[in-house]
Amino acid sequence: MAFREERDTFGPIQVPSDKLWGAQTQRSLQNFEIGGERERMPEPIIRSFGILKKCAAKVNMEYGLDPSIGNAIMEAAQEVADGKLNDHFPLVIWQTGSGTQSNMNANEVIANRAAEILGHKRGDKFVHPNDHVNRSQSSNDTFPTVMHIAAATEINSRLIPKLKQLHTSLQAKTNEFSDIVKIGRTHTQDATPLTLGQEFSGYTTQVNYGIDRVICTLPRLYQLAQGGTAVGTGLNTKKGFDVKIAAAVADETGLPFITAENKFEALAAHDAFVEASGALNTLAASLMKIANDIRFLGSGPRCGLGELILPENEPGSSIMPGKVNPTQCEALTMVCAQAIGNHVALTVGASNGHFELNVFKPMIANSLLHSIRLLADASASFEKNCVRGIQANRDRISKLLHESLMLVTSLNPKIGYDNAAAVAKTAHKQGCTLKEAALQLGVLNSEEFDQLVVPEKMIGPTD
Amino acid sequence: MAFREERDTFGPIQVPSDKLWGAQTQRSLQNFEIGGERERMPEPIIRSFGILKKCAAKVNMEYGLDPSIGNAIMEAAQEVADGKLNDHFPLVIWQTGSGTQSNMNANEVIANRAAEILGHKRGDKFVHPNDHVNRSQSSNDTFPTVMHIAAATEINSRLIPKLKQLHTSLQAKTNEFSDIVKIGRTHTQDATPLTLGQEFSGYTTQVNYGIDRVICTLPRLYQLAQGGTAVGTGLNTKKGFDVKIAAAVADETGLPFITAENKFEALAAHDAFVEASGALNTLAASLMKIANDIRFLGSGPRCGLGELILPENEPGSSIMPGKVNPTQCEALTMVCAQAIGNHVALTVGASNGHFELNVFKPMIANSLLHSIRLLADASASFEKNCVRGIQANRDRISKLLHESLMLVTSLNPKIGYDNAAAVAKTAHKQGCTLKEAALQLGVLNSEEFDQLVVPEKMIGPTD
Amino acid sequence: MAFREERDTFGPIQVPSDKLWGAQTQRSLQNFEIGGERERMPEPIIRSFGILKKCAAKVNMEYGLDPSIGNAIMEAAQEVADGKLNDHFPLVIWQTGSGTQSNMNANEVIANRAAEILGHKRGDKFVHPNDHVNRSQSSNDTFPTVMHIAAATEINSRLIPKLKQLHTSLQAKTNEFSDIVKIGRTHTQDATPLTLGQEFSGYTTQVNYGIDRVICTLPRLYQLAQGGTAVGTGLNTKKGFDVKIAAAVADETGLPFITAENKFEALAAHDAFVEASGALNTLAASLMKIANDIRFLGSGPRCGLGELILPENEPGSSIMPGKVNPTQCEALTMVCAQAIGNHVALTVGASNGHFELNVFKPMIANSLLHSIRLLADASASFEKNCVRGIQANRDRISKLLHESLMLVTSLNPKIGYDNAAAVAKTAHKQGCTLKEAALQLGVLNSEEFDQLVVPEKMIGPTD
Amino acid sequence: MAFREERDTFGPIQVPSDKLWGAQTQRSLQNFEIGGERERMPEPIIRSFGILKKCAAKVNMEYGLDPSIGNAIMEAAQEVADGKLNDHFPLVIWQTGSGTQSNMNANEVIANRAAEILGHKRGDKFVHPNDHVNRSQSSNDTFPTVMHIAAATEINSRLIPKLKQLHTSLQAKTNEFSDIVKIGRTHTQDATPLTLGQEFSGYTTQVNYGIDRVICTLPRLYQLAQGGTAVGTGLNTKKGFDVKIAAAVADETGLPFITAENKFEALAAHDAFVEASGALNTLAASLMKIANDIRFLGSGPRCGLGELILPENEPGSSIMPGKVNPTQCEALTMVCAQAIGNHVALTVGASNGHFELNVFKPMIANSLLHSIRLLADASASFEKNCVRGIQANRDRISKLLHESLMLVTSLNPKIGYDNAAAVAKTAHKQGCTLKEAALQLGVLNSEEFDQLVVPEKMIGPTD
Repeated sequence: MAFREERDTFGPIQVPSDKLWGAQTQRSLQNFEIGGERERMPEPIIRSFGILKKCAAKVNMEYGLDPSIGNAIMEAAQEVADGKLNDHFPLVIWQTGSGTQSNMNANEVIANRAAEILGHKRGDKFVHPNDHVNRSQSSNDTFPTVMHIAAATEINSRLIPKLKQLHTSLQAKTNEFSDIVKIGRTHTQDATPLTLGQEFSGYTTQVNYGIDRVICTLPRLYQLAQGGTAVGTGLNTKKGFDVKIAAAVADETGLPFITAENKFEALAAHDAFVEASGALNTLAASLMKIANDIRFLGSGPRCGLGELILPENEPGSSIMPGKVNPTQCEALTMVCAQAIGNHVALTVGASNGHFELNVFKPMIANSLLHSIRLLADASASFEKNCVRGIQANRDRISKLLHESLMLVTSLNPKIGYDNAAAVAKTAHKQGCTLKEAALQLGVLNSEEFDQLVVPEKMIGPTD
Repeated sequence: MAFREERDTFGPIQVPSDKLWGAQTQRSLQNFEIGGERERMPEPIIRSFGILKKCAAKVNMEYGLDPSIGNAIMEAAQEVADGKLNDHFPLVIWQTGSGTQSNMNANEVIANRAAEILGHKRGDKFVHPNDHVNRSQSSNDTFPTVMHIAAATEINSRLIPKLKQLHTSLQAKTNEFSDIVKIGRTHTQDATPLTLGQEFSGYTTQVNYGIDRVICTLPRLYQLAQGGTAVGTGLNTKKGFDVKIAAAVADETGLPFITAENKFEALAAHDAFVEASGALNTLAASLMKIANDIRFLGSGPRCGLGELILPENEPGSSIMPGKVNPTQCEALTMVCAQAIGNHVALTVGASNGHFELNVFKPMIANSLLHSIRLLADASASFEKNCVRGIQANRDRISKLLHESLMLVTSLNPKIGYDNAAAVAKTAHKQGCTLKEAALQLGVLNSEEFDQLVVPEKMIGPTD
Repeated sequence: MAFREERDTFGPIQVPSDKLWGAQTQRSLQNFEIGGERERMPEPIIRSFGILKKCAAKVNMEYGLDPSIGNAIMEAAQEVADGKLNDHFPLVIWQTGSGTQSNMNANEVIANRAAEILGHKRGDKFVHPNDHVNRSQSSNDTFPTVMHIAAATEINSRLIPKLKQLHTSLQAKTNEFSDIVKIGRTHTQDATPLTLGQEFSGYTTQVNYGIDRVICTLPRLYQLAQGGTAVGTGLNTKKGFDVKIAAAVADETGLPFITAENKFEALAAHDAFVEASGALNTLAASLMKIANDIRFLGSGPRCGLGELILPENEPGSSIMPGKVNPTQCEALTMVCAQAIGNHVALTVGASNGHFELNVFKPMIANSLLHSIRLLADASASFEKNCVRGIQANRDRISKLLHESLMLVTSLNPKIGYDNAAAVAKTAHKQGCTLKEAALQLGVLNSEEFDQLVVPEKMIGPTD
Repeated sequence: MAFREERDTFGPIQVPSDKLWGAQTQRSLQNFEIGGERERMPEPIIRSFGILKKCAAKVNMEYGLDPSIGNAIMEAAQEVADGKLNDHFPLVIWQTGSGTQSNMNANEVIANRAAEILGHKRGDKFVHPNDHVNRSQSSNDTFPTVMHIAAATEINSRLIPKLKQLHTSLQAKTNEFSDIVKIGRTHTQDATPLTLGQEFSGYTTQVNYGIDRVICTLPRLYQLAQGGTAVGTGLNTKKGFDVKIAAAVADETGLPFITAENKFEALAAHDAFVEASGALNTLAASLMKIANDIRFLGSGPRCGLGELILPENEPGSSIMPGKVNPTQCEALTMVCAQAIGNHVALTVGASNGHFELNVFKPMIANSLLHSIRLLADASASFEKNCVRGIQANRDRISKLLHESLMLVTSLNPKIGYDNAAAVAKTAHKQGCTLKEAALQLGVLNSEEFDQLVVPEKMIGPTD
């Protein structure tokens, strides 16, 4: 393996020749051997650095940055934004809490790549990571800016579309099942009937509100810290820089980013992330409930509730046909548990900021992005491989409904509470149907019973 | 102690004569000896039952409830809403997960009290707990309705006003301290300067956004489950009952309650509470950060940072004058930790609902109300007994600022980076001031130094 | 209401005449209006202060405290330990994070009561709260000492006995159900059989290990901070004081308390509480699983699994006989969710200690004691009102078992995998029994089938 | 890219030719597109599958497995255990909750590899994944077995050694700093003195107990589920298989694994993981406290506490010499927050098991292994790059100590409380030293003062 020398204020250091990173990245690699490759800074952060550095170069040219250097930076930054240089971002989440080293990683890679574009060599600092790429910036405002770009982008492009797809699919089932009357269950015990469509309408509503809740958090994610520099004052920037760069990022991403109202808050706290994570936590609680219901309603095939037939995606068991394990429910509920845990991790980090800078930034960023990704992917997988293919087991549903003792409620007006109770008690004791019990007790004839006990009339208020 | 007999479908049971409750309350008392008196259902739930039962009687009269009974129920329910009958609500949170027993407690107390108002005896069921007080209702829709009334009321009447008061006080300090330039701190280390007012503006913004975040959750708390009855279908109610009762509650409370868009969701899930708790969790993270900063900035008097002088509310130590323990910060941060924990408890409960009913209702209700109460009270206490009286220790702030090596940054343009670094290094090594070092190295004279090193010019972007 | 004047170094203050507390307690009452009465310091803390102050007086007499005063303190402290003076401890958890004010509350109450015993008046400081009652002590060592005494006592006298009772009851059911073969369920789907006793043996083991886990944390709870005084050094105590006082507490409580190995850790951290809370968190996860299983196995009566018949403790529904809501399971699972949340609150508090003193002490103490109390009471309630009375629904269990397709597994050796699969598939498709399918396909006769398909032989490894 | 056909009971499917996995792995890859490559099953799980499958083949040969096949399986499994076949394990954590698909991944890879070893082709099932590699096993017992092997191995080989190294380093600092008297801090405020060594002894004790706590959880992790097969009964195994396989694993790993006392508990619950995670949660709280202290004590260089000089590992700032960011503290505290969050995720998953199988297994496994890895690596990094190089800033410590007003305590015996208080008050008001105040008030002469005020005598109890 070949090396070249790179330097920073600490002196020279050997860097692999085939990598674009510089001295500070290399130092971080050596000082933070924590967790290995799977703990690398998440890709949306890397890509957002590309977007930000491109916009910064653009705005800096307005403020006097040499255009040839500025344009080369923009070109190199675009490659980062496109994910083409991911291999040159080796740093892990568990580094300095300001994300400084990942900011320098971006600066170094873009500087070296821009230098190459301009025909110079890696490491000769023709394009300087600090003076050119990081101009008018500090890690302390770039990292939170990149956090917000990454989160808002991932929510808009990944999470919301997949949740909408799940919502659409649940709505379709709500409609499809609107005429299937079934037994309700409260306290896990038999209760009065409802339609399977009504049951699914609850899930549909949960996902619908979940989308609303996530969207509600976006306004504060659209606020960018950029322009605050080291402590929020904007020292070393020019007036108006903050507004311009937010506009450039908005232009680049198509999302309505604006400069943060208060830069001190934007560096020292990450409440916007706690808030967004809170929306994901709510979503996780919703999806956990939905997936639990679906697996219990689909339990069986013989000894469970058996009201739903879930799609069979893989062998459940080599011997038992009909054994469909609700594996999509399982993957989704595991993801929900992880999102609930990530929310706690993020909250702990966010509550521990001190003075002008919260230094749990990479962990906070990763927790939210991790939950977004997992919830989005798992929702999509659940929709595609489970919800879409759910069928109602109409025979089973009907059988359970008509066996239920709960339907006795509709006899009250005709034969009175005491007689109705006697019918139910007799049926329960003898293990027979309500009708059998009613006939046996002689309180009604068969025709009367059939006229009165109509579950279809028990699924809404009366006129 | 005297007793009277009350009955339910399980038969007779002895109840203390001086209590208004009936058989089902008594049974719950005996079956759930968990936690003792301090675990009783929170008072806002009790009072909200008073509001709901009053409104239900009013609407039920429109649907045919005997007016003399209806009016007596309204009168009795008003007493519950006023907190006059709190002693008659002995049940603990840790009961049936639907809150049925607390609903029956309300029904029984109101029925007995209404009967008394009409000149009848306790226990004779002249006013019937189920047939009259609970008419057209089920525990399954009343309890979530009461949860929403209680939460929305507590947020509006208790939490928001106290947060606004804290916000006002922090804003006043932001203004008061706007001309005090001080050293910034990032990574807990000395950084470039800002004003103390700028620092407080971050806190002010956090609380401001915190208020916004809580308010954002209200629309979904204003949705009432009432009218869904047992499983969400509205069986045993008349069409329009749900809309009328929400209107009556809105009228009674002055808050814009409406009937829930989907009653199945409203019984089976408590996502609205997870969402509201998420806003409190964010608030807790914010307040933890603010209180931590204030206690560290006020640390000392001699061996800490000592930039703030906190009000002295009680003896810190019998021997050491000037020792002011930041006890209000401590109470507040403890409350924040509890709110973060309650949020997890609530999330676990909310994620575990099954089928048509979530049966963690009393715990979910209590967790949110507990956090609202604690955060509101602690914010008020913190505002009144700490923030309001915070003074800047101007001498100390100025001393630290001018001792800081960070100001060397402003020499760069004049003497160049290398000379500036040499000045800083010399000062650090010798433990002298920057000025002393600069003069010693001969790179500037005293006048030049004083002209260049002006922290007041380092607190914002340049033109 | 009558008042008397009490004083501290802040000057005079009015205190209700009928209360024994003094100036510092009164000041805390006024400065920390947070949460109201239900947030008072938990009773085990108050009682443990009684124990500690009694022991301190005893040891202080060995070091020269006037015996008449010492004995009066011991007598007064015993009244506190016996819970007779609870009304004189009005302070809430949300006070100074060192618990200083509750320590002073104890000192003031005991001093005034001891003075009365000696014929003096309240408030005249004949017995001095600091010089006599708090002698050789600091809040910083007394409060953690009292935390440990309270936790160890509550675990030993309340939690362990109730868990053992639950364990015994589950073990009895394990034995009672040892011959009932039933269908197993994995992924909530039908699986190979086991006995109901085997299923309950899992629960029994979980509770058994839960007891072990709690006991494992006791050694570190038995370490007492007393003797560390303000920062852990033991300034203002005599050598040996720490050992003597631990011995006195051990003697008084009958528990093997010893002096903490390192007093700095004992004041600055509460890892022993995080550890103990971790054991409760594990217990909560176990009990949540057990209670969930029991409610699902008891679901029905007609449309659920219906394998267990749970005791009926209160009306489940006025109309539907046989509707038994699993309310004890619900109370227990709500308690588990709360314990999981308290664990997070406690962990957040414990992780935020600074320098020589963790100042989340009252919250940490309360979280653990709250979880101990709730888990103990709910376990006892669950045992008494649910587990003890669980009956197996043998008919239902047998019906489900024999309907299951899973039993086909035992045909493999005789007719081969392909034929067995064909039998199962036919049964599943036609909704018939395995036997019917086997006969229809002609792969076995009735006798052979009955000989081979014997669930009782499927519940263990073969020889 | 070339493909070959593999089959399972669902039929044929295309698999990349260069991969050893088979049909079920391929199906999972397609059905669970959740999270991408960084979410792959953790390597310790893969390696432990290698260990287990090797041992299973060994024991199965005793029960009749063809030795040529058995030996080939052992050889192939060893390659998995050695991490040589990691690329053939593409499945993510978010799959079926039993981990079945990863078990099949192991079976398929080992079967194909063993077949190759024996000169056969991939996919021809000469060595069969189910009949040979998975013989006498079920996913339901192998996955929990592998979880326990992985956790116990990682704790023993990775976590404990790194914690011991941290403990040793903290102990060395405790000794090195044993003679440095410094000001104590309680409530973040100045307090009575202690030595820096005493302060570090608290940290040392915390880590020491942390090691003990983790070790305490091992006995239950050493219990292996293997032999329970599908539901815990051991159906399809021979008597003694469970004991033999645990012995083989113990032999292979050098760790004292035994067969689980109760297999039903071992499949249906993962309390042992909740318990172990609880120990990590405690450790995280400890390390958070230690790292926070160290960064605050090292804050400065001019405007913080400045008592510790932390090693400088990378440029803190290009302009300000002496600015050392406590980046190792930051990485460690971020890891602690993540471990606290993972603990919640794991607890949620563990509390949601149903009936005979908990189906949050991969998430539970990953959470614990993630925390182990991060805490181990971060402890090692913190030790190597921070603790080891910490120096005491003796001048600063001495200056702060002697400026402190707290030392006035030692004048009490000589000049009385009132005079001592007057000295302290005067010093505080005038901003002078205690000595200056004492001389000014004429209560002592210089010599007397120097004799009395000796911080070195304030760091322990008196004789």
